[in-house]
Parts: sequence; C-alpha cells; structure tokens
Amino acid sequence: MAQQIDIERLVDQITKQVLASLNTPTPNADDCSDGRCVADRPDRVRRMVEAGATRFSSRLGAIPADTGIAGMIDHTMLKPDATSEEITSLCHEALTYHFASVCINPTYVRLSAQILKGSDVKVCTVIGFPLGATPPEVKAYETEQALRDGATEIDMVLNIGALRSGDYKLVLRDIAGVVNMSHAHNALCKVILETSKLNDEQKVAACQLAKVAGADFVKTSTGFGGGGATAGDIALMRYVVGKEMGVKASGGVRTYQDAQTMIAAGATRIGASAGVQIVKESRGEAIQASKSGY
Amino acid sequence: MAQQIDIERLVDQITKQVLASLNTPTPNADDCSDGRCVADRPDRVRRMVEAGATRFSSRLGAIPADTGIAGMIDHTMLKPDATSEEITSLCHEALTYHFASVCINPTYVRLSAQILKGSDVKVCTVIGFPLGATPPEVKAYETEQALRDGATEIDMVLNIGALRSGDYKLVLRDIAGVVNMSHAHNALCKVILETSKLNDEQKVAACQLAKVAGADFVKTSTGFGGGGATAGDIALMRYVVGKEMGVKASGGVRTYQDAQTMIAAGATRIGASAGVQIVKESRGEAIQASKSGY
Repeated sequence: MAQQIDIERLVDQITKQVLASLNTPTPNADDCSDGRCVADRPDRVRRMVEAGATRFSSRLGAIPADTGIAGMIDHTMLKPDATSEEITSLCHEALTYHFASVCINPTYVRLSAQILKGSDVKVCTVIGFPLGATPPEVKAYETEQALRDGATEIDMVLNIGALRSGDYKLVLRDIAGVVNMSHAHNALCKVILETSKLNDEQKVAACQLAKVAGADFVKTSTGFGGGGATAGDIALMRYVVGKEMGVKASGGVRTYQDAQTMIAAGATRIGASAGVQIVKESRGEAIQASKSGY
Repeated sequence: MAQQIDIERLVDQITKQVLASLNTPTPNADDCSDGRCVADRPDRVRRMVEAGATRFSSRLGAIPADTGIAGMIDHTMLKPDATSEEITSLCHEALTYHFASVCINPTYVRLSAQILKGSDVKVCTVIGFPLGATPPEVKAYETEQALRDGATEIDMVLNIGALRSGDYKLVLRDIAGVVNMSHAHNALCKVILETSKLNDEQKVAACQLAKVAGADFVKTSTGFGGGGATAGDIALMRYVVGKEMGVKASGGVRTYQDAQTMIAAGATRIGASAGVQIVKESRGEAIQASKSGY
C-alpha cells in the first residue's frame, strides 16, 4: 500500500515536471490535453482495434483465446548479421504460427513485406535502433522509407541521452516525428525506452512523453542494451500510460513462463526471438533449449 | 611463409569473386579500375593528406613524432545514454590532448562542432550504427544531415547481413552512397566491417568493396558487436587495402600497449574511449584503471 502511494506520488510529480517543461497544460484523467480525448480520435481507435488494444479494459492480464499467445508475439530477428535466408525462414515461421508480426531491421522490410503480403502477419521494423541517438529528422526519414517499403508497425528508440539530459522538448519532438509519420501511413508506433539505462523517474517521464506524442505503445528494451523486460517495469509503464496504450515487453523474454509473467504485469505485446518455443510451450509441446537473445 | 602464400591466394580469389559479381574489370596493381589511379585523384589526395594518410609509405607502423599517439586517436563516446554534459567534457579532453577527432553519435554532432570550432580536432560521427542494417537511402540521408550539422569524418557500418548473404552489389551501393555524400562535403569516410561477425573471406570481400567504393579507411569494429580489433585482422585489412587507405583499429583498444600492437600491425587510426589513459601511458604518466568499453 505504501509502495502504491509512492508510485502514485512519483508519477504525479514527474508528470507535472515533464508537462511544465513542455509548457503543456496538465491533461485531465481522460488524457484530453488538446481538448479532445486521444481515445476518441477515430484513426487512433481504428489502429488500436487492429492491434487488439481495445481489448485491454476487459482482457488486460489475459492471453486472448482466439489467437493464443502467438497473437501477442512480435517474432523478432534483429541481429546485424541475419541473412536474407534467415529472414525468409522467420517470415515463414510467422505465417505458420500466426504471430502478430515479424520484427526485423529496416534493410529486410521489403523482403518481409513481399513474403507476408495478404497474410494477417504485420511487418514491424525498428527505427534509430538500438541506440536512439540519431536526430529527429533522420528518424522521421528512416520511418518514411520503412513505411514505403511495407512496414506496418514501427518500433522507435527514443533519444536516451536527451532524456537523461532533461531535454524533454527534443525527446518529444523526436518521438512525435516518428509517430506522425507512422500514423500518416496507418501504421502503429511503439516507443522503446531502453529501461536498463533509465531510473524510475526517467521511465515515468519517457512514458508521459510517448503518451503526449500520441504513440500507440511503450516498449521496454532493444535487447542490445543489457538488462531487458522486468515485471516491475511493465507494471510501472502500464500504470503511467493507463489502459489506452499498449505495453510491449522485450529483451530476455525466452519462455512461456516469462511471457505469462509479463502479461500478468500488464504487457499486451511480447517481443521475442524465441517465439516458436514460447508457443510450443504454451501448447504443452516438447521444450527445446532456449535460443540466445540478440 | 606458407601462411603468407595462403593469404595472398585467399585475397586474390575473393577479389576476383567480388569484382566478377560486380561486373567490374579486375584492377591492376595500382588500383586504376576506372582508368585513373585512385591515389592520383586530387580531391582524394588532399583528404588523405589532411588525415595524415600520405605518411603511410614512410611511417606505416610508427607513431608520428609531431602529434604523438594522440594524433592517431578518435576520442570516442558512443554509449546511448551519454548526456550533453558528458559529450561536452569529451570535447574538452580532445582539445586538451589534441586527439584526431571526437567520435560521437549523430545526435551530438552539432554540439561537438560548436565546441570544437576553429580547433584541429575533427568531428567524427557514426552512420547506420551499430547494426548497419538500414537501407542505402537512409544511410546517405543520415550522412547528409550529420555533415550539415558539422561532421568532418564519417564512420559507416556496412550492411553485414547483405555481405553474409553474398549481395555484394547492395553492399557496394550502400557504401558508395555514404562515401560520395562524405566526399561531396570534403569529409573522410571510414567503413566499419564488424569483424567479429565475419569470416576471413567476408573480411577480404568487405575491404575490396570499401576500396572499390572509394572509401578512405576500413575500420574493424563498432564496439557493440562483441569481439573487437585484433592484430591479425588489422594485418589482413592492411594487406587487402594496400598503403593508399587508412586502417582504423577499434573495439577493446584500452591501453598504450594495445594501441602500439595495432599500429605495428598496420593501423593508422585508433578508436578508443580510453584515449586520455592511452596518452598518459605513452608519456609514462600514472596508469589508471581501464575504462570499460562501450
């Protein structure tokens, strides 16, 4: 109980700080900072429906019965040395298991979009990845190219250094550029916090900035920065963004048990390279040795 | 001796393979693939003079007496959580010790260029970093923005996945886009191989492609991909690119002894986050605990 009050106080305090630094009026409980509820915007609602996000209120913390755990997993291969053959194989696994998406580097968006054309598997790519240390113009341009190549979900890394330097205006502008570009192409945008590099105050600030920028999801980790998703971080992120946004747990989620823990804490999407194994475990099939992360 | 013959055979074989796949005639010993020796091009020669590269023939393997080891070091801070305060401090160290450049993420090019204006310290930044997995158009755009912000040296990561997939045309187009953009702004371009992800054949092919694309340097590592510079890799890279290009050793170079080993093997530039310590050691000053990599 004391812990809950502490978190509420922390979130309240950081929120005021962040919004004051942006010269933005404090939003009311419905997040209507521009006089119009974010959740009421038709384009946003449609995207959230497509992503399964409107099921939050009734199903938060549960695995959907229709798709099973697979429908919550971004089937991920982001290692820099992945060959076109490996990406092709990843896409075919995604078709077989009905994962939510494949999550691949921008260089493989076109190939993945070709293979997945006409299927229910989305093409998710990463922007400013994994350091987040490119300027807003570059992230927006990179996003535009990825969308043109066929990406339908965009996972962008926020500017970690700027966040840690307290330059919230730059962080917001950086996120908003990618969010706006994504939404102009009817794509979802997730904001990667890289939680291992942030303290709790910075995590709260990052979630608030993602929310103000109109992002669809916050996401814990790149998988390249050490650390990874923790139940505590997921719960904190869920608390700050509320029920209207998605929360993606990524980095070190390797087993069905890991995935269940993250979902119970508030995650609505899982990023994993071990998606096939996780699904097999969820069906009680033979458990293989864990794939390594990366 | 047997090893030397093996290397010659390997390099010869891979070179033929790479050039054949590009439909480019095999260059003669002077590397005049377009009928004009690369080293004869006035713009390139000027850039190489500025970078100290024309001293290769007489001084390869030696530390220049005028600048000492500092003049060969790119003083590096690429961690994603670096604050503007840390980058400012890095730049001031570079001015104090007369490092060749500061090597920082694109988000900090403008700040670094402001601090270093009018000095002899270059502003080096990284493109497609550290995964190299963005499309050619994105790398070229990112380069253009960095040059506009004040970068004078560009360290780009080649497309590792495309190289490993044998798609040499894409690798070449990717490098050439960044090289041409850099040269149009009188900036040097270094090509990062990420040697830890490549076998010897792929390292040779990468060096040849960097050479054909007109790059100024080849560079071993990002510092984020595991592994790092080895004397063997430096010697191989030097052998393939010849005396006309620079070779930069980066990743895990933490002591003066490390730096000396790399220089003896053929490196003409060192990328290190421990530059201050390396210089102090070279002067016989107190040795501090090594900084970690990253």
